[in-house]
This record gives sequence, C-alpha cells and structure tokens, in this order.
Amino acid sequence: MSDNKISTAVIKRLPRYYRYLGELIEMGVERISSNELSERMKVTASQIRQDLNNFGGFGQQGYGYNVKYLYDEIARILGLDRTHKVVIIGAGNLGRAIAGYGNFAKRGFLITAIFDINPELTGTDIGETKVSHLSELEEYARHNHIDIAALTIPKTQAVMVADRLYKLGVKAFWNFAHTDLNVPQDCVVESVHLSESLMRISYNLKSMEED
Amino acid sequence: MSDNKISTAVIKRLPRYYRYLGELIEMGVERISSNELSERMKVTASQIRQDLNNFGGFGQQGYGYNVKYLYDEIARILGLDRTHKVVIIGAGNLGRAIAGYGNFAKRGFLITAIFDINPELTGTDIGETKVSHLSELEEYARHNHIDIAALTIPKTQAVMVADRLYKLGVKAFWNFAHTDLNVPQDCVVESVHLSESLMRISYNLKSMEED
Repeated sequence: MSDNKISTAVIKRLPRYYRYLGELIEMGVERISSNELSERMKVTASQIRQDLNNFGGFGQQGYGYNVKYLYDEIARILGLDRTHKVVIIGAGNLGRAIAGYGNFAKRGFLITAIFDINPELTGTDIGETKVSHLSELEEYARHNHIDIAALTIPKTQAVMVADRLYKLGVKAFWNFAHTDLNVPQDCVVESVHLSESLMRISYNLKSMEED
Repeated sequence: MSDNKISTAVIKRLPRYYRYLGELIEMGVERISSNELSERMKVTASQIRQDLNNFGGFGQQGYGYNVKYLYDEIARILGLDRTHKVVIIGAGNLGRAIAGYGNFAKRGFLITAIFDINPELTGTDIGETKVSHLSELEEYARHNHIDIAALTIPKTQAVMVADRLYKLGVKAFWNFAHTDLNVPQDCVVESVHLSESLMRISYNLKSMEED
C-alpha cells in the first residue's frame, strides 16, 4: 500500500506507537488487542483501531495485532529500515548527551563524526567517536556522506554552520540552537527548542493554578 | 483582558514570538510593523496581526508594535513574570546541559538543586549547584519548594522518581526519559522525546526523497 494516504496526524502519533510496540517486544509480547494497547497508551481503543487500520487492517477480531509485524511496518513508514549517518556539531554537554544515547544507534542513527570549534577538544573521545576541529568539516564531507547534522551549538554560530553544511549537501538538520535556521526549502529542519518547552510548562502551570 | 479567550493555537505560537521579540530588544529595536516581523519570522503579516490582536490590538496603523510592551505582555501570559524553582534529577550530560543553560535563569527558571543516584557525583559542582544524592530528595523537599522537576534519567527510573516527586507536592515535570510518566491528571507533563524527534527527521527525509 502507499504511505501517502496516511494523514499527518497519524504520522505524528506513529513514534509513540513505535515506542510502545518496542517495549512490548522487549517484554516478549507477540500479540496485543486494541483494548490492551488502549489501556497502556491511554488512548481510546477506537482511536488505535482507526490509526492502525491505515496499514491495512492486520488487527483481527479476537486475535489482536501482531506486535512485531506492526513494529516493522511502522519502522518502514518512518524510514527506520535504513541507517542514517549523523554528524554532531558541538561537543558540549548536549552534544555529548546525544552522542552517548545508545538508543539512537539501535534505531539506525549512527554518530559518524563530532566537530567542535574548541581546539582543546580536538582529538578527545566521546564514546567511540573522536572530536574533530570544525575547520575539518569540508574535508570530512568530501569523503563521507552526512544524512543528518545535529547542531548543539549557540545560536550565533548555528545559522552559519547550517549554511556551510547545506553547501556540503546536508539536507537534514536537528537544531538545538535557540534560533530558526535559514536553510532553503529543500531541507528537513527539526528544532528542539528547550526554552519553548519550559515556557509551555510555565503556561500550563499558570493555567492549572487559575482553574 | 482575560487570557482565557486566547486559543491554544495562538498560545503555541507565543514562545516563538517571545524569542523574536527578545532578539529585537537585544538589537535595540523599539517598534516593529507586522510586515517587518512577518519577513523575519516567515509568517504572513496577516497571521501576525491576527495573533497579536488577541492582546488588545496595540499595533497601530503606520506605527507598528511596541516591542517591549508586547514582549512583557507575552511573558505575563506565559507565566514568565514569576520565578520557577527547577530541580534536576540526573547529573549526566543532559542534566548538565540543562543546568548550564544560562538562558533559562534569564527567564526566571532557577536551578535550585540537582540529584543523582551515583554516590561518586554527590558533592560535585555543576555550575553553581552541588549534586545531592537522590536519597536526600525527601529531606530537601521538606524544606524547599519545587515548581518543576526535570527528569534526565533512564526510563526505568523516571516513572518511580516522578511518583516520589508527586508525593512531595511537585506538579510539573519536564520529562526527558524515553517513556510516558504515570502521574495524576493534576500535573503538567512536558516530554522531550529526542528519539521521536529523530524519527520525524527520518520520516520527512524519506518523504522528501520520494517526491
């Protein structure tokens, strides 16, 4: 079936399904009913049935969903059935946290290089990856493909470095800098704005107290 | 005016307005037209006018918006006109990254304590805050108010620690663990699921390549 028919709303929910299905696999669960999954995920069973019907109704009445099949199918739709080479720009705490997160590698996101502007960090190891100086970025990109660049650098540098990466053919940016990148339309930009996340907490706390 | 009239869609966009207005203030800009703001933010001017009209139409034809006034008004709506005491659970790289992020303090989010289960970290400093052992959490909470708890710990511990914090009166959780917390409805939970963020990149990359 074509993935094109799946609405963006469903796509947005897929990573969460994927996470729960992964946990079920770890627990050795092979089949699950929409009711059981509903209880775990705190989503209505009808919502689950509706969402998962998008993949061709492989839930069977009284039999449930095949967990592994569903997991693999969602992986395929999300593009997780291939590996992605990820380069991290910025070897600070956030860059280190990302480099050290084993779950990413498990899902095929391989940290292939880490760059930093600080010469003192050049040559040091983060996990199994050596930190290179940012000036070596162009040379590296000439010999290695980069699928995704994670930018864990201050906003003053992020826009410029993203431009450099774009010129080197990078089309996907995982942006942690407190700014919007200025890259062309043919790029994927996923921003994690931690400040905005904190502001949502503060707004929701305020709303809760006012109720 | 009451903030209740503002739709959630607008509320969601406020942090981004707040960020741009903050940058304008840093640049010494006092007034800005919806057209100029539109160009900067890459949102249509009519969207901006519509959004900002929610605060009582203090943009004037041919005169523009008072940047500082708008900035303060949005801060008030978002609950940023007060300070929030934030406790970090987990002194790993992610906890360190958050503790060291100066922008949070600037917006009134004060890191008041950091806890970790690793005894080797107890007593070490992260920025200006000393790491305490997680076993001291209850004692700490008896004497100190906690507005927000940031959970930068593995998923196996996060659910349990959130329960402990809830029993200590904590009502807001900034969850970085790869799991959903199981706290009661009267809590604010803001999850930053980095894996899901990466999956969105992978999905969007795939969609782009298929076009």
